[in-house]
Amino acid sequence: MIISDEFFMDLAIKQAWKYSVLTYPNPSVGCVILDKNGALLSCQAHKKAGFLHAEPTAILFALFKLNEQIFFDFIKAYYDKFFVKFLSIKELEEYDLEPNFTYEFILENHSNLLKDAKAYVTLEPCTHHGKTPPCAGLFIQLNFKDVIISCMDFNNIASGGIALLKQHNINTKFGVCGEKGKQLIEPFLSWQKGNFSFLKLAISLNGVITGGVISNTLSRTHSHKLRDVSELLVIGGNTVRIDRPTLDTRLVENGKNPDVLIYSRQNDFDKNIPLFGVKDRKVFISNSLENLEKKLVMYEGGVGMLKLAFDSKIPNLKWILLYKSNELKYGENIKFKNSFRPIFESNFENDNYGWYEIN
Amino acid sequence: MIISDEFFMDLAIKQAWKYSVLTYPNPSVGCVILDKNGALLSCQAHKKAGFLHAEPTAILFALFKLNEQIFFDFIKAYYDKFFVKFLSIKELEEYDLEPNFTYEFILENHSNLLKDAKAYVTLEPCTHHGKTPPCAGLFIQLNFKDVIISCMDFNNIASGGIALLKQHNINTKFGVCGEKGKQLIEPFLSWQKGNFSFLKLAISLNGVITGGVISNTLSRTHSHKLRDVSELLVIGGNTVRIDRPTLDTRLVENGKNPDVLIYSRQNDFDKNIPLFGVKDRKVFISNSLENLEKKLVMYEGGVGMLKLAFDSKIPNLKWILLYKSNELKYGENIKFKNSFRPIFESNFENDNYGWYEIN
Repeated sequence: MIISDEFFMDLAIKQAWKYSVLTYPNPSVGCVILDKNGALLSCQAHKKAGFLHAEPTAILFALFKLNEQIFFDFIKAYYDKFFVKFLSIKELEEYDLEPNFTYEFILENHSNLLKDAKAYVTLEPCTHHGKTPPCAGLFIQLNFKDVIISCMDFNNIASGGIALLKQHNINTKFGVCGEKGKQLIEPFLSWQKGNFSFLKLAISLNGVITGGVISNTLSRTHSHKLRDVSELLVIGGNTVRIDRPTLDTRLVENGKNPDVLIYSRQNDFDKNIPLFGVKDRKVFISNSLENLEKKLVMYEGGVGMLKLAFDSKIPNLKWILLYKSNELKYGENIKFKNSFRPIFESNFENDNYGWYEIN
Repeated sequence: MIISDEFFMDLAIKQAWKYSVLTYPNPSVGCVILDKNGALLSCQAHKKAGFLHAEPTAILFALFKLNEQIFFDFIKAYYDKFFVKFLSIKELEEYDLEPNFTYEFILENHSNLLKDAKAYVTLEPCTHHGKTPPCAGLFIQLNFKDVIISCMDFNNIASGGIALLKQHNINTKFGVCGEKGKQLIEPFLSWQKGNFSFLKLAISLNGVITGGVISNTLSRTHSHKLRDVSELLVIGGNTVRIDRPTLDTRLVENGKNPDVLIYSRQNDFDKNIPLFGVKDRKVFISNSLENLEKKLVMYEGGVGMLKLAFDSKIPNLKWILLYKSNELKYGENIKFKNSFRPIFESNFENDNYGWYEIN
């Protein structure tokens, strides 16, 4: 393995992928920071809209790595302000840090430790003051020397980061792992233009997709997180009748239960099926998938839904999300001839999962 | 992701896994090198017995990274000596470098550039002069400051590396990712004790394992590399009759075609089946898998062989090697109820593959 700009950008991209789509309506972004001597300090990603951006998160952890006292000062200050106590750096890493407080903490405590540092960012750093202050400004105020960027921001409001960095004499390099960086933000580009739709499916090692739970708790938690951010859940009528699902977000804290569209010609569903009883949810029944007018739509289902996908009958369907268990399950496999092209693959403990395009 | 000793050791371990079993009879070893300031310079692994060890390989690439002139000097010297011309660093990385020449080149050209550097090695560096000079000595001669080791070497001939490093005032730390490091050398520990056996299987996304080629060229090349190092290939009689395989190593340059044991009660095989026609190969037919007296045995086959594995009827069977395509193939799936525990998973382009234990 050759160590190069591509190696570090790849780290940032892979970190960002973990939160793909979960950042809706924001793009997935990852950031890696090296100190002035080239030592790797941190690799972090944007996790969810409203959470700290990738760049200040990576900067915060870089400071922790350079000086442990800054970590202790941060957890003390955070406790004093919010009465939230972090017991470890791992715990802090998972937490939804208050963006403005954290940003201010960085500005007050960086002690010029990141002077001449180098950042790898998967997307051009933002220049606008949204829920969080602009990231390009942070690199400038901390006197970074180099900012390497994979992909331009196509969002007019937030773009201009490269120009601003250059104006402040920061060396910028653009297009490192550019194709990969662009693929990472495909969901973002799609919902910016109108809609991003994906189909989620869980499959056993021997190709069984029916007969109860297939994926593990971590996979299902990931799936619930995706439901939480989705504007609409579409499910096939047969799956509703046979599986009698709840389609809620019980594995996620304070999860939002999205409205459900049952794709069916009939509408004589047993209203005792749990999905109808979920609070604050509307359930629609329709035999059309056109003009849903939602920006992020998650499709769930079985063989029928997969057939629609293969027949290009799901409007705007971009990716398939597969959870693949390493278990052999008694039962019949799905009988199709087709293939998937992996875009990103990883695992949740013993399960594999990935985002795919239909080949 | 928190950057720590575990992060760098994990890089070394993952690099080593790419050559798991392929290093037979040597252990799989990976090595990461940071310069005195903590900058990541290289991550390399031992690829095959007789090839350069992981440590000098990582040191060579670390020197290339620190001073590009050393790279140019090396390719010139290599050409002058062996008439082999490298066109890129990537090409050189894949090549079977002559160990003694390379070792000497490092000693003559390091210019103390790695003084106070830090190495992460998945296994205690060797102290004996085998086909290649001892690795522990190289760290000493180049004045490394720290050598972090995941796992002790249980091989009496080569061990003693930690003691030697300490004796020369190199800081050593032992047990970083210790469990992972030990798992990496399980094949080595097994064949040291007598035998390591594994079963290779290719499976489509929907659980079909029959009906022609399932995995892609890279997966099959990997499989041929494993045949090349295996002492014996065992295959079920039914698979031989139905698939009429060649079981050679045509996808590998100068591959050795291992002897074949056909596991069958009958021995009336059509001798026109290609596997019988492979040069320099013995073919045995036996209804017993006991006392094969080989150190590395590769099992191939289909449903029958998998059933033997599940019923614990393959002696010393340690791991299952699965090539998993992302294609849906027409056909029936394998019908078992069982599960696999992933030990290492990665991919060959669009195929997934991994080493598994039966759960």
